[in-house]
Amino acid sequence: MRGASAAELVERAREGDPRAVARLISHVENASPALREVAEALAPHTGSARIVGLTGSPGVGKSTTTTALVRAYREDGLRVGVLAVDPSSPFSGGALLGDRVRMQEHATDPGVFIRSMASRGHLGGLSWAAPQALRVLDGAGCEVILVETVGVGQAEVEVASLADTTIVLLAPGMGDGIQAAKAGILEVADVFVVNKADRDGADATVRDLRNMLGLGGRHSEPGAWRPPIVKTVASRGEGTRDVLAAVDKHRAWMTEHGELARRRERRAAAEIEAIALAALRERIGDLRGGTALDALAARVATGTLDPYRAADELLASL
Amino acid sequence: MRGASAAELVERAREGDPRAVARLISHVENASPALREVAEALAPHTGSARIVGLTGSPGVGKSTTTTALVRAYREDGLRVGVLAVDPSSPFSGGALLGDRVRMQEHATDPGVFIRSMASRGHLGGLSWAAPQALRVLDGAGCEVILVETVGVGQAEVEVASLADTTIVLLAPGMGDGIQAAKAGILEVADVFVVNKADRDGADATVRDLRNMLGLGGRHSEPGAWRPPIVKTVASRGEGTRDVLAAVDKHRAWMTEHGELARRRERRAAAEIEAIALAALRERIGDLRGGTALDALAARVATGTLDPYRAADELLASL
Repeated sequence: MRGASAAELVERAREGDPRAVARLISHVENASPALREVAEALAPHTGSARIVGLTGSPGVGKSTTTTALVRAYREDGLRVGVLAVDPSSPFSGGALLGDRVRMQEHATDPGVFIRSMASRGHLGGLSWAAPQALRVLDGAGCEVILVETVGVGQAEVEVASLADTTIVLLAPGMGDGIQAAKAGILEVADVFVVNKADRDGADATVRDLRNMLGLGGRHSEPGAWRPPIVKTVASRGEGTRDVLAAVDKHRAWMTEHGELARRRERRAAAEIEAIALAALRERIGDLRGGTALDALAARVATGTLDPYRAADELLASL
Repeated sequence: MRGASAAELVERAREGDPRAVARLISHVENASPALREVAEALAPHTGSARIVGLTGSPGVGKSTTTTALVRAYREDGLRVGVLAVDPSSPFSGGALLGDRVRMQEHATDPGVFIRSMASRGHLGGLSWAAPQALRVLDGAGCEVILVETVGVGQAEVEVASLADTTIVLLAPGMGDGIQAAKAGILEVADVFVVNKADRDGADATVRDLRNMLGLGGRHSEPGAWRPPIVKTVASRGEGTRDVLAAVDKHRAWMTEHGELARRRERRAAAEIEAIALAALRERIGDLRGGTALDALAARVATGTLDPYRAADELLASL
């Protein structure tokens, strides 16, 4: 397979060869020069996967929920991809694989592709790599792709920009769940899941959420989708079918309102932009190697040049 | 002051007029067209402020520590700037000002400028706005600038790229403190502060840290700076002078090893790059308004065009 062309790899991936899928995603992770060919070979096969994002604070049960959702989709005979992205870790390539072992249930199932992905700092970056990895899974024939974010903060918001439907997970008794919601994830949720619903405080969490949803934000605009709140005990598989039903309902609503096409086009625009900017950044990086940027930086650092003029000079030399 | 030129504003800011400083930072936050002039007027006065970053998980006492450090620097007669950045909240301009009220002690001190700043998502972004806000505070005559990050994850790492010296705060009994350290903040720390050191477990936290520091990473390379671990009780001001001493020691070490100039040049290079990329992104945005990007995105979303070719077409039209 080492010498396989992009078209051959895509063909094998579509036939269900997990090694071919892994190879294709490695091309993305390594920003391989073959990516252009990969993208071209994939394009005709993309656009049909349903992409479901999963986000929430650490400890709410994201991995367990992902596992339960994968199980349910597999029962329905769907081919499933899982992409676990970790945008908060610029330091390693295969970070935070620890909890992936919990997914071992699906590790030998040929209808499930699982991939963890750390962002690569500068050039890579979630906005650049994740959409392309999703495109691989989509082109490889995954009918549903779950994007799970590992990490907190901005990641929670960014994962929403990758998905058709974003599930925000909370758990009772975690004050920070609601706090995180305040900070932005409330806005990105299409479906709320209160996991660990067998614990004390589950009803209070649902009530808090409902109150917050009434307080404003995009969900309270007229004609807007009102995100349902589903209670689950993911470790026992309870409520999983309700989550799927809520996701399907959101999808039907989006299709009816033209929102699905809008989201996908917005996503494609962001992807194109990220690729274009990465290309420009690479050219700037080449200049850096050529010390042009270094010389400008030294002058800015000492105050003899302002950064705007320096940027002008940099762009002029592109 | 409404019609004041950039040069006049910079002049007034240097004379200590807090409204002029606020106006200048607003230019940054609003990505005002006047920013070019502002940058030009500031440049000759920049490059002398010491920039100290403060990061750590929520609850470790960042605000209290910032307040204690400001107090100590003021006792030494230094003019102090505080920039609280919140890169995880793309949704509002003046986010998370709540805990700023704890800084009220310094609110009426003309030798202290305090500013909170949320990142602005796309165009703005921390890497674009924060260095320019720091440049305003530097040019306005702040001798020390504390950059405090609000929020977690990538923010903790990014704040380090803005500072000469980065302080990472931990508190005893917070497992996630050490976990966060694992995820990356261990690498960016120049000084560790274990705050709330009067609580049980402070010595264990120090011990854990010391063990982790021995395990590898940039700090264990030969000739590398070994970050000291300082214990504080910031709410009572205990240990604040030790923190200042550690920061000064790090500064002396950096100066001796040429690291200070290297960091500042790396920072200037990143700033120039961010400005250049924002300019390019703006041109892409203009194209978006002109529907060129939208048309490309629609073709990519339906699989009739791959995103690389789309990016080529986009760049060709710049």
